[in-house]
Amino acid sequence: MIVLKSVYFQSKKTNVVIKGNRFALISEELSQADVDGAEVVDCDGLAIFPAFYNAHCHAAMTLFRGYADDKPLFEWLNNYIWPIEAKLNDYYVEAGSRLAVLEMIKSGTVFFSDMYYFRETTMKVVEEMGIRATIGVTIADALTPDWQLNDHFKFLENHTGVSDRVQLAVMPHAIYTNTAKTLQKCVSIATSEQYKLHIHLSETAKEVADCIQEHSCTPVEYLDSLGALNEQCIAAHCVHFTENDFRLFANSGASAVVNPCSNLKLQSGIPNVVGLREAGIPVALGTDGASSNNNLDMREEMKVLALIANVNAGDNRLSQQEIQQIATEAGAKAYGLSEAGRIEVGCLADCLLVDMNHVGFCPNNNVVSNWIYGANSEAIRSVICNGKFVMKNRHIDGEEDIVKEANKAIAKMKSEL
Amino acid sequence: MIVLKSVYFQSKKTNVVIKGNRFALISEELSQADVDGAEVVDCDGLAIFPAFYNAHCHAAMTLFRGYADDKPLFEWLNNYIWPIEAKLNDYYVEAGSRLAVLEMIKSGTVFFSDMYYFRETTMKVVEEMGIRATIGVTIADALTPDWQLNDHFKFLENHTGVSDRVQLAVMPHAIYTNTAKTLQKCVSIATSEQYKLHIHLSETAKEVADCIQEHSCTPVEYLDSLGALNEQCIAAHCVHFTENDFRLFANSGASAVVNPCSNLKLQSGIPNVVGLREAGIPVALGTDGASSNNNLDMREEMKVLALIANVNAGDNRLSQQEIQQIATEAGAKAYGLSEAGRIEVGCLADCLLVDMNHVGFCPNNNVVSNWIYGANSEAIRSVICNGKFVMKNRHIDGEEDIVKEANKAIAKMKSEL
Repeated sequence: MIVLKSVYFQSKKTNVVIKGNRFALISEELSQADVDGAEVVDCDGLAIFPAFYNAHCHAAMTLFRGYADDKPLFEWLNNYIWPIEAKLNDYYVEAGSRLAVLEMIKSGTVFFSDMYYFRETTMKVVEEMGIRATIGVTIADALTPDWQLNDHFKFLENHTGVSDRVQLAVMPHAIYTNTAKTLQKCVSIATSEQYKLHIHLSETAKEVADCIQEHSCTPVEYLDSLGALNEQCIAAHCVHFTENDFRLFANSGASAVVNPCSNLKLQSGIPNVVGLREAGIPVALGTDGASSNNNLDMREEMKVLALIANVNAGDNRLSQQEIQQIATEAGAKAYGLSEAGRIEVGCLADCLLVDMNHVGFCPNNNVVSNWIYGANSEAIRSVICNGKFVMKNRHIDGEEDIVKEANKAIAKMKSEL
Repeated sequence: MIVLKSVYFQSKKTNVVIKGNRFALISEELSQADVDGAEVVDCDGLAIFPAFYNAHCHAAMTLFRGYADDKPLFEWLNNYIWPIEAKLNDYYVEAGSRLAVLEMIKSGTVFFSDMYYFRETTMKVVEEMGIRATIGVTIADALTPDWQLNDHFKFLENHTGVSDRVQLAVMPHAIYTNTAKTLQKCVSIATSEQYKLHIHLSETAKEVADCIQEHSCTPVEYLDSLGALNEQCIAAHCVHFTENDFRLFANSGASAVVNPCSNLKLQSGIPNVVGLREAGIPVALGTDGASSNNNLDMREEMKVLALIANVNAGDNRLSQQEIQQIATEAGAKAYGLSEAGRIEVGCLADCLLVDMNHVGFCPNNNVVSNWIYGANSEAIRSVICNGKFVMKNRHIDGEEDIVKEANKAIAKMKSEL
């Protein structure tokens, strides 16, 4: 049990009691019973915020931060990323995933959706470091022998490694890296085993043009024709939607994850966040991999989201509450964590304790505005996930070793090229 | 004398010697004479970067951070900013300027151009806190009685308060807050007294439309007709330029300062950075005030600059070196500091010592890329301006008091409304 005493919440000081992995009480009054046996944390000068949920990421690619910048998506993949990814093994993925989770905790993220390889390794890292993840069984049949594909599906049928903080999902990489047959198999296993299905979708104009040429329809229409567009579907990017795509996607109940920094950096385009929301599509936020962002900082992503969403939105701009909700609760909800992403009795106890004396929070005219636009992740003092501290006073056990190991790993990897 | 020993610079470790206020030596070898009597700083694990030059700011407006968000420029000014600014006095400006300079140093900025009021107070703060500024004598005759206007010009004629770190400039607020006569007087004093002239220009579509209606030409053409467009002119924003504006402005030798966060947040538009550069216009970077950004963090501004400049630039994207140069050297140069903004023997000794073990700098595939896109201002350990430490190990004397006083000041100000 943890008692966050005198913490700033919704413009006043209150107390927040965490029992087990849930918020149990939010109250200005505390009885003796509320504090008996609890770890009482003096939160004077600290505000409580919902933690971030990063709805689209490739964690271990943090090893490739700055490895190949300023290339368009397909050149970047073909000439830089795929050749070095061919060298991946458990050691590299562990080093990269640890670095990623370290960066996420330091910047206030307690959940990420991971589309990558060597999934057991990433699952182990997430379990050990104390946050949450939906780990993808990543399917790209163009690059995968049949026996491996069958292994992937078996892994899903066995619900291997699932826990209270780690879940699995079916993650076909994209329509252009999978046959229709494989995509349909993904849909079928998502349906029968109740998995979310996560896929890159309409990220670039080239993806859309290629799809129209090959299938005579847009990627959204194509996914729909395969039965993949439904409430279990979470599509990343969604940059190049036609009017019909907006309608189809909205009617299907699928969710979109926008990744503004990555899309702008890779010159994929500017996601139409307000358009997606106005069509009735649930929108969450992701950083994408650190190789195309180049960080996993959801606070920074949230500011960029607000800027690009609102610049041309006129009076239909997203409110600060909506911006914050997209970066927190919406990501949790998309991945089936409906009681998470907000500070509310009964919800999963994930939260940030943020230093209101950080210069970016001063003066305190509007604490939510300061969080989106003013301060940065340095202001985060402590992070709680599932009712436990995963960072206290900006300290995480083993941080120096994680950084050292990651530098060693990428040097070794480059030497193998 | 300061010796930065074993500091990471341009992909290797070297030593940097500062004598007085200049870089005196950059060398892998050090003689005894180089270190005798010097403060030797062990920079193991630290990289040296040029400090930031914030080319457009309203420092004391940091008091209004988050005070009024999500309004278009003219509504924001008329209904929120101007009414509270009517309450300004020396005390408020001192509290706001101190907060601003604190935030700037913590985020690596050693120079700002300030267009605001109660200039002597801001000058005093800059002198005391150890950084550089060009302080504007701000002219908005629509809001100013004649006697005050004359005082402004007298202040400029006397070169009041100028020092080795603080210079003055003539800063007519905009074409829409000044008569042609006043603008011409500004030009004349800039010419005779050798001052830079800094002005908001073509910030919004409304400014352009109003100007065309009133003067039958664009704001750029109008300024040119008044003789204001020349090498002394530094124009902030430059969002809505026509083809002819690009040509006229480029031929004049004037400089542009872009403020992407503020422009996007106020829905003014997206500055065409690549277009300005391709026209041959020198481009620097500013944060604008924290009331429209909402911070003064040039690292964050630099990332947003890179993203919005390059998303639609195809192969004409700005290189990482150009992005960094816009945020550093270009700002210095625009304000007449030609030997500043870079780490080079003979240049003014302004620099940042940055922690390469910060998670955003890991791994070290590309240190400049990591600085623009990966890390954030938390990585800055120390800041040197004019050959002196203004921050050491992230500590600045009096930080807590500055934050406390700023919160007190804005509360008092709001109570007066």
